Amino acid sequence: VAIEAGILEKNDRIAARNRALLWAKGIATINLMSSPGAGKTALLEKTARVMGPEIEIAVIEGDQETERDAERMRAAGVRALQINTGAGCHLDAAMVGRALGTLEPRDGSLLLVENVGNLVCPALFDLGEQAKVVIASVTEGEDKPLKYPHIFRAADVLVLNKIDLLPHLELDADRLVGHAERVNPQLRVFRVSATRGDGIDAWCEWLRAQVERAAGKSTAHT
Amino acid sequence: VAIEAGILEKNDRIAARNRALLWAKGIATINLMSSPGAGKTALLEKTARVMGPEIEIAVIEGDQETERDAERMRAAGVRALQINTGAGCHLDAAMVGRALGTLEPRDGSLLLVENVGNLVCPALFDLGEQAKVVIASVTEGEDKPLKYPHIFRAADVLVLNKIDLLPHLELDADRLVGHAERVNPQLRVFRVSATRGDGIDAWCEWLRAQVERAAGKSTAHT
Repeated sequence: VAIEAGILEKNDRIAARNRALLWAKGIATINLMSSPGAGKTALLEKTARVMGPEIEIAVIEGDQETERDAERMRAAGVRALQINTGAGCHLDAAMVGRALGTLEPRDGSLLLVENVGNLVCPALFDLGEQAKVVIASVTEGEDKPLKYPHIFRAADVLVLNKIDLLPHLELDADRLVGHAERVNPQLRVFRVSATRGDGIDAWCEWLRAQVERAAGKSTAHT
Repeated sequence: VAIEAGILEKNDRIAARNRALLWAKGIATINLMSSPGAGKTALLEKTARVMGPEIEIAVIEGDQETERDAERMRAAGVRALQINTGAGCHLDAAMVGRALGTLEPRDGSLLLVENVGNLVCPALFDLGEQAKVVIASVTEGEDKPLKYPHIFRAADVLVLNKIDLLPHLELDADRLVGHAERVNPQLRVFRVSATRGDGIDAWCEWLRAQVERAAGKSTAHT
């Protein structure tokens, strides 16, 4: 436990440095976390296609192996850098710090960080982001916020994805959202189908507000 | 890295002790691993209902919080013990060793261990099981075995679950299975719908063979 506290403390120091750097440049950084297969990359592809023409977007992709997600994001028209964690189960602030040096996101841009698919470990590691988003797929069942509360408690936003599949599932989406809100009453919820497009406008509106907030931080800084 | 190696070595020692104990009693122990929401508990419920009348089954449930899964298993007619890991992201051999002392599974029984929902960390931790099973849902996408290869490499069996949803998805199940077999050519694959019942007979047949194998170990031991 002492070792873990040391690791988290060191991570928090590097995250604070990332955050200061990102805010000085007015970059809105969003940390996206979910189980594998909840649709993080599909959501980012859709987001890039909708918002790419109006806002400069860069993406950091975390996976144990392969360059696949970064390639998908480049195909969606945005700059992307892949981090492979090997046996590692989450991104940490040092990885993101190094990625910032390579990717060099522009001042005033939107930086989307797709964490390793894992509903547990990423919750503990601050990356220096402005906001944390947890994505849950309706196929995962109603009780996930109760069984994995840490990540739902750490998040600012819940994106409930794959709502196009609801007619084929025995699942009450309101109960799922109720469980999430019980764990974290401050949670902002968007119900989305990343593939079909439902709810994407409201999600992008929230992202635009994040970009404006980061611009405000930058102005305050200079 | 040195610290992690020490933790894994200690875990392996306790796992070896669990394994010796379980095999002396002819108990077939299966470690079930997946992302949250892939349907581990639903698969175990179905398995308990089909095989419960013929074979004594006990279940160890791992979750960060709540007693929900153990309650579901008891409702399905089997003895179940819940382990709550708190911030922890996987079961380890010491947790299972303690659970064995409380649960006391009968000689010759089938012991199903449902790991914490996580496609990354459980791959590293031997629990003393006879076989490892990874469950993937078709809703998680085709590329998960390539992006999270460690757990697919560690597993003896892949249960591809929720095949009843295939008509509503843009997913080629053969490609998913091909990716898994590329990562692990020894992998045995069952295509299943735990809720509708497809493929459950073949899965239970494999479990019966595991019970027979454990009985053979026990006979060899005495």
